[in-house]
Amino acid sequence: MSSSTVDPADPVFRLHVGGKMAVTSTVPLTSREDLSLAYTPGVARVCEAIAADPALADDYTWVSHTVAVVTDGSAVLGLGNIGPRAALPVMEGKAVLFKQFAGVDAVPICLDTQDVDEIVATVKALAPSFGGINLEDISAPRCFEVERRLDEELAIPVFHDDQHGTAIVVLAALRNAAALLNRKLGDLRVVVSGAGAAGVAVTKMLIAGGVNPDQVVVCDSKGIIGRHRELTGTKAELAELTNAEGRQGDITEALRGADVLIGVSGGQIPEAAVVGMAPGGIVFALANPTPEVHPEVAARHVAVVATGRSDYPNQINNVLAFPGVFRGALDARATRITEGMKVAAADAIAGVVAESLTAEAIVPSPLDPRVAPAVAEAVAEAARRDGVARR
Amino acid sequence: MSSSTVDPADPVFRLHVGGKMAVTSTVPLTSREDLSLAYTPGVARVCEAIAADPALADDYTWVSHTVAVVTDGSAVLGLGNIGPRAALPVMEGKAVLFKQFAGVDAVPICLDTQDVDEIVATVKALAPSFGGINLEDISAPRCFEVERRLDEELAIPVFHDDQHGTAIVVLAALRNAAALLNRKLGDLRVVVSGAGAAGVAVTKMLIAGGVNPDQVVVCDSKGIIGRHRELTGTKAELAELTNAEGRQGDITEALRGADVLIGVSGGQIPEAAVVGMAPGGIVFALANPTPEVHPEVAARHVAVVATGRSDYPNQINNVLAFPGVFRGALDARATRITEGMKVAAADAIAGVVAESLTAEAIVPSPLDPRVAPAVAEAVAEAARRDGVARR
Repeated sequence: MSSSTVDPADPVFRLHVGGKMAVTSTVPLTSREDLSLAYTPGVARVCEAIAADPALADDYTWVSHTVAVVTDGSAVLGLGNIGPRAALPVMEGKAVLFKQFAGVDAVPICLDTQDVDEIVATVKALAPSFGGINLEDISAPRCFEVERRLDEELAIPVFHDDQHGTAIVVLAALRNAAALLNRKLGDLRVVVSGAGAAGVAVTKMLIAGGVNPDQVVVCDSKGIIGRHRELTGTKAELAELTNAEGRQGDITEALRGADVLIGVSGGQIPEAAVVGMAPGGIVFALANPTPEVHPEVAARHVAVVATGRSDYPNQINNVLAFPGVFRGALDARATRITEGMKVAAADAIAGVVAESLTAEAIVPSPLDPRVAPAVAEAVAEAARRDGVARR
Repeated sequence: MSSSTVDPADPVFRLHVGGKMAVTSTVPLTSREDLSLAYTPGVARVCEAIAADPALADDYTWVSHTVAVVTDGSAVLGLGNIGPRAALPVMEGKAVLFKQFAGVDAVPICLDTQDVDEIVATVKALAPSFGGINLEDISAPRCFEVERRLDEELAIPVFHDDQHGTAIVVLAALRNAAALLNRKLGDLRVVVSGAGAAGVAVTKMLIAGGVNPDQVVVCDSKGIIGRHRELTGTKAELAELTNAEGRQGDITEALRGADVLIGVSGGQIPEAAVVGMAPGGIVFALANPTPEVHPEVAARHVAVVATGRSDYPNQINNVLAFPGVFRGALDARATRITEGMKVAAADAIAGVVAESLTAEAIVPSPLDPRVAPAVAEAVAEAARRDGVARR
């Protein structure tokens, strides 16, 4: 059976019949009196009040707890550019996780365009209906421009989860791994393998969280990124920001003497390269379903291993971040999501298991109900600290 | 207290705190196994299947029961151009009525643009996420072009409720009023007062349902529409289609000898004009909250009176139509909504009370639970008959 064949008896397909989500009313609608309050004529008074003071939409509509999960279907999971309709099951999954973990009402919006200008125009046009925009599975480098422009032009939080969700959880995991090994973040020599959406965001987030940029090296499929290469856009930025020693070469060269490997590329990394790392190292091999280094192989040579998979310890899963991040941003009525809010989210995730650290539990389980409330509170506080909260 | 003041103790505002709707998961999400089916890694197989055969999105996502309720906030209730945020309470109300009466999961999409090209582009871009598009409260004449272009360019049902929802219920009511009075639809002399979105659609729908176009006269604020006037666009179409006798003059002149007055303008009509109607007449005065003729005044001179208000008999309310129309269109996986489907909806609404007709009950109550299922079944059948059903 090919991977694209439907087996109606398969539990996955059985579960997906009719999709995974529904809309419900939160008000009674069974009498004429109910209708006259929730709909005409009563509703007109609420409309008039919001027309006079648009901020009242936060109080009297569902925007204050509602997020659009927007994709163009161009980089879905590891499946690549499968288009908007095929992306919908992932977006529904994301939406129900938003609800399950943080009570956020999320709506999948799968766009029939992959043009940056059209994506930006569409999201701006539909923004009045939502309290935040979660961008999802949009391929690099377009995702950077889409997010930057929407962040600039909208007064509600915009968050590309593939970048920042991953980056937040990686920072949380690295904080706890470092604590476990009695190392300081600022002393670690870090190699990031992958310079796509996640790689760029992870690099920036780690630096925002305390890693020394001079001790970071980023690799793409052509090897170490640095000023020796002709680069543009985000990779040129990385060349400026990192690799202070001007190192050159492949991933094996990059890993020589490194303390930390963070794989976010899907490109395989040979065991011999991991052997070259400094003693007591840390490997996060996050590609799904096939980690860059098999976790059992990595464990032979380093002290702490994490993956993106649920069947090994230390699962680095975005679900630890995005529900609480948006809950916190919405609770504070934040106008955007700052670096400070993301670092606060990472610290909150790390904090949940800080008292019970082991090499096999540097991050909480994705199902840990303590995570989203802790993240939400920390993010809302950070929003107020950073001056982007409206309450 | 001005009409735009918030009174938090008012039952309408109390009910609206936090809005009126929520998203829920229809699948379990409490164990790792649950997550692996609903989200990664399981979901990837569903995505791959849809990528190989996009029609499978109808089976394995929520599109088959999901409608976007799209507005630009330009003609909201009787409030006019109050913008997208102030329109949201109405769209949420519409969405929860969709769910309550027909189990359709509707999502409000309030657009931050009133440009026809931008509205069309935005709705086309977000269409893959939805099984149908309910356009709402978009002002004439832009609403005609928006609907026409989306109907042509999308392969899912597009329905401007202010036009066709009203028109369907008016046709249903007129059928029953005529039956009650032992009149044939084709013999009635009909005056439509108002040539906006609803007026145009009502006129076309009545003709599709059996009214003789030669015996229809439409009035706008300048009087009777006919070839004697210099008109463009939809009004020029009406001048061609109706008023075969070439009548000229104001609403009083139009009503002289008429059997039916349908007011969809909000413009007041003097009692003296109603007095000029033929004996045993029918008045539907649908403006809200102030009918074109007060129903008690109209009742002095005609046999059957209907309004849009819930506090008088015979409430002509779109909620009798739109939930069942979309339920039926979605059930048949219709690619569009045909005239035949609309006429079928009207007949089904009329049929619910056909056996128990009185002058005070020519249409079912908006809360009558028999209506939406009857409409859905009739609409789905008509879709198959008209060759637009995909199942």
